[in-house]
Amino acid sequence: MSPSPGLLQSLAWSRTHESELFERFLQILRIPSISNDPEHAREMRTCAEWLRSELVRIGLNRCETLESGGPPFVYGEWLNAGDERPVVLIYAHYDVMPVDPLTAWDSSPFAPTVRSGRLYARGAIDDKCGVSISIAVLESMLAAEGRLPVNVKVLFDGEEEQGSPHIAGFIAAHKDRLAADLLVVSDGGGTPGQPLAMASVRGTVDAEVIIRGPRTDLHSGLYGGVVHNPLHCVGEIIAALHDGDGRVRIPGFYEAVRPPTPAEQAVMATMEPTLVERALQETGRTVFWGEALGSYAMRATALPTCDVNGVWGGYQGPGTKTVIPATAGIKLSLRIVPNQDPNTVLQSLCELVGTFACPTLDVEVLPGAVNWPATLLHSGPVFAQLQAAYAAAWGVEPQLYRAGGSVPFMGYAQQLLTLPIIDLGFGVGGNAHAPNEYFELEYFRKGIDTALYFYYGIATLPRAVFHAQY
Amino acid sequence: MSPSPGLLQSLAWSRTHESELFERFLQILRIPSISNDPEHAREMRTCAEWLRSELVRIGLNRCETLESGGPPFVYGEWLNAGDERPVVLIYAHYDVMPVDPLTAWDSSPFAPTVRSGRLYARGAIDDKCGVSISIAVLESMLAAEGRLPVNVKVLFDGEEEQGSPHIAGFIAAHKDRLAADLLVVSDGGGTPGQPLAMASVRGTVDAEVIIRGPRTDLHSGLYGGVVHNPLHCVGEIIAALHDGDGRVRIPGFYEAVRPPTPAEQAVMATMEPTLVERALQETGRTVFWGEALGSYAMRATALPTCDVNGVWGGYQGPGTKTVIPATAGIKLSLRIVPNQDPNTVLQSLCELVGTFACPTLDVEVLPGAVNWPATLLHSGPVFAQLQAAYAAAWGVEPQLYRAGGSVPFMGYAQQLLTLPIIDLGFGVGGNAHAPNEYFELEYFRKGIDTALYFYYGIATLPRAVFHAQY
Repeated sequence: MSPSPGLLQSLAWSRTHESELFERFLQILRIPSISNDPEHAREMRTCAEWLRSELVRIGLNRCETLESGGPPFVYGEWLNAGDERPVVLIYAHYDVMPVDPLTAWDSSPFAPTVRSGRLYARGAIDDKCGVSISIAVLESMLAAEGRLPVNVKVLFDGEEEQGSPHIAGFIAAHKDRLAADLLVVSDGGGTPGQPLAMASVRGTVDAEVIIRGPRTDLHSGLYGGVVHNPLHCVGEIIAALHDGDGRVRIPGFYEAVRPPTPAEQAVMATMEPTLVERALQETGRTVFWGEALGSYAMRATALPTCDVNGVWGGYQGPGTKTVIPATAGIKLSLRIVPNQDPNTVLQSLCELVGTFACPTLDVEVLPGAVNWPATLLHSGPVFAQLQAAYAAAWGVEPQLYRAGGSVPFMGYAQQLLTLPIIDLGFGVGGNAHAPNEYFELEYFRKGIDTALYFYYGIATLPRAVFHAQY
Repeated sequence: MSPSPGLLQSLAWSRTHESELFERFLQILRIPSISNDPEHAREMRTCAEWLRSELVRIGLNRCETLESGGPPFVYGEWLNAGDERPVVLIYAHYDVMPVDPLTAWDSSPFAPTVRSGRLYARGAIDDKCGVSISIAVLESMLAAEGRLPVNVKVLFDGEEEQGSPHIAGFIAAHKDRLAADLLVVSDGGGTPGQPLAMASVRGTVDAEVIIRGPRTDLHSGLYGGVVHNPLHCVGEIIAALHDGDGRVRIPGFYEAVRPPTPAEQAVMATMEPTLVERALQETGRTVFWGEALGSYAMRATALPTCDVNGVWGGYQGPGTKTVIPATAGIKLSLRIVPNQDPNTVLQSLCELVGTFACPTLDVEVLPGAVNWPATLLHSGPVFAQLQAAYAAAWGVEPQLYRAGGSVPFMGYAQQLLTLPIIDLGFGVGGNAHAPNEYFELEYFRKGIDTALYFYYGIATLPRAVFHAQY
């Protein structure tokens, strides 16, 4: 099928105006929108307002910042493509991680700097490229054609790096506004020469276990052996979470897990050497954990996990303090996979931990954030358009992978809005969340091209196709 | 046997001069000799120097402050009683615990204040009464008679509240100077109307377990399930330390334990209701731990214990941080009883913990302070003199008990100097280590009397008797 005239015009327009589009990418990179730091609350609003005005400028309608309890969401829409065309909800996030340690940066994190074909700045790949390229693509299409090939809703999240704590309430409050035929998530990316596409993301279950013993801290020389030490129970609970092979012992934990498809298995086999190589370099360990459960890629992406992230209680300073703490606790985070239900997992965890309560100790589980896993489109006509778009823009089709991480919006969008999801990430580079985050400059152009091919591509599909996928 | 003229003269002198003796007690209470706080290093030396000058003033010889690496020891001696008389080493400590929280004190901790027959001050019972009454007793005898009934060496410790970390080296460096026939430890005390005498103290073994995993902290969303989390090993090690009944599972842990004698069992039976009552009040728990192992008194005083005092590693702040820590650790303290050897116990602990090392984690044990348990004289002619002294001064004999706590000097003196030990404590009152520490005023007089009866009593015993006891 030959490219549509609109696609060709938009590609041409974006090339002619590439330096202006790139300049706007630099502008947003200059705003220190660190969401986890109350000192940056003003910059979060500056960034949100700047994005809203950009959406107005390029010609979207109903452009607003929407409150959710944290930094605002930014919304805009353009719904004049016609009822037969799909409604696409485009998601990216404008908040970034903190920059500590600042001294490890070779250039200031909020003064974007080009060196050797790379653009260095906090947020360069995670995820202001997602925000900027999405705007650039929409602007190119609207400027070139005066219209978009599909109906579009844009949603920029300001607290993804905090785990989007207000996302469930926000979606529930804006169900109609967010209704769509497809969710395109532009968070993620690829490696130079090889685009990647998520087949799934994991969900999370956070919890804290509190163990209460004596009324106050006691002297272990006086009360050791007669008062049950909460830290001893901490050890017993942690030891009960895994068997010797690293298998999680929460009852029923693996029951709902969707096993990888043959295609996913093939992808994991391809990913295996890269993942292991990276782990060898980053961890300093030569032997990994849980090998009885499956390949490295299987354990890191397709299996659920349970980690203790911290233990508190008692004395941690230098030397010795002979204390039996009144209270101790365990911070737990679980990663769950399709088709696990985070609420079921949380309940099983509570039941297991609850068995440690006894006349000498009280045990309580405080549930934390709960996020759903999500399965993305990874076959069928919509995915075929993604493959075709990458083939056209990069000369190579995307490699599918199951992501070990989580994007809370994906899980809740799938649960609450029953949206099919596709991954169209623009972040090609390195050092996300770390000093010297960088974006490979040539992928600004390739990202715009890929998105233009994709949006014009899916415009040819009947609306019904989108929901049939899911 | 009628009292010796020397005893009667000394009793009389101490009565005549009681207000001056008491004034000196107040003087030392005014010096904030908090040993664990570097800000009080100067006051530690002020206190040591004041004590040295007191020993000079009352007529001791060779009065010196002796360096050990921490606050100085204070030493003085009077060895002119004749070769046929025993050499008694008198031990007490002049350092005190911190006073936090200061707001909980009804009067300033270093402004000794009398209210309702009680003297309130930090150190009033632990252990400046031991220092002051020892000096008052020696002064009374020297002033009344111009001589002492026994040869005396005095040693005041300045870091007992820190666990006397330099004690082993100090004793080794001063073996000849500290050689004696009997060690009298004036740390401890009784309850109004009922003197107490320690039959034994426990020793301690401190250790820290370090578990090293990845080179740096990792994201548990990326590395959970593939990198062995040091905190999971923390849990397994802690869980391995005790069985479900609270029995310590360190191999051979209970093998050397000296079972209580029938007399000690009788004492424990007497102590049981008091200890349980105190525990009910102080702990807020109604059920205690380890009941399968023995009575409350047995577990609290005559059995060894193992407590986790702290766990470090990972995230402990509010909310969640999905981290696999590079390193985690466990702070352990064990209480050991006669006849356990702390070095053997430490080695068994290291062996047990070492079994958790694996290709995915490194495990190391850092030994901390090691202190020997000690068995005190609790029968025989020397102990009979203690009983007689209390009977004369209080009208009641002391109740024997096995102490759950530790006095490091006792264990090392017994191991390195093979000294028989007797407990002559003057601390009758309450709130040791806590706000509003107080001394029951009438026991200043009774303490002096008891010590005078005791020292004149043992002067009648042949030297050989002391070592036959041990």
